Amino acid sequence: MASVLIREAKEGDCGNILRLIRELAEYEKLSDQVKISEEGPCVVGYGLYYFIYSTWKGRNIYLEDIYVKPEYRGQGIGSKIIKKVAEVALDKGCSQLRLAVLDWNKGAMDLYKALGAQDLTEAEGWHCFRFEGEAMRELAGK
Amino acid sequence: MASVLIREAKEGDCGNILRLIRELAEYEKLSDQVKISEEGPCVVGYGLYYFIYSTWKGRNIYLEDIYVKPEYRGQGIGSKIIKKVAEVALDKGCSQLRLAVLDWNKGAMDLYKALGAQDLTEAEGWHCFRFEGEAMRELAGK
Repeated sequence: MASVLIREAKEGDCGNILRLIRELAEYEKLSDQVKISEEGPCVVGYGLYYFIYSTWKGRNIYLEDIYVKPEYRGQGIGSKIIKKVAEVALDKGCSQLRLAVLDWNKGAMDLYKALGAQDLTEAEGWHCFRFEGEAMRELAGK
Repeated sequence: MASVLIREAKEGDCGNILRLIRELAEYEKLSDQVKISEEGPCVVGYGLYYFIYSTWKGRNIYLEDIYVKPEYRGQGIGSKIIKKVAEVALDKGCSQLRLAVLDWNKGAMDLYKALGAQDLTEAEGWHCFRFEGEAMRELAGK
């Protein structure tokens, strides 16, 4: 196993990360939603995060995507990415790290639970809802 | 029924909105997490939203909280707040409006579905996960 460096992304990583985003979209069966043409070597995984400040829940960090190329899985890279994001979160004063996962992605669900995450959908009954397309335009009266 | 004006919040609304946030926390059985002392009359509901830009999912709007005082429910105020947010979302170039809801909150779930939202947890199997407290510190090695 090659040694793996977990670090924040730099501008020069964009092409590689976009390629991984396309791979993730294929894995999530949503690749028709991605239009990317850039290519590049060497970056094997990524996590996209953002901060949310809620009035009473405080500052939280959300992991939007986390992805490791199939041939690099089983080496703990996903865990290292999540740990790095947890470090950033604590440094920035966040009290929670949140992410969403598809229930057929058992590997990811088991990993997050093993790392100490709570499944809020299972434990508290949270459901994710989405408006889009025609439903959203009708809603807005446009 | 009094006429209801749906508008963006102003600085002077803060006290009222904070009071509603506390009411929502009580409804969600999380009131121990809220410490607010300001009081005020007249604001009867609110929705907190934020924008997220994802590389391949585009710009989206997230409704973090939506709340209407119990004595003002059944007048379509919740729907009006969501419609207003959908208008803002389209004006800002968002392709999706997302929100999360507890499964025991049947009134809210039925309303969102009636307005055209899709339950992604039911339809695609999305689960919400959270790290916090000791689990988060252990994860970060702190």
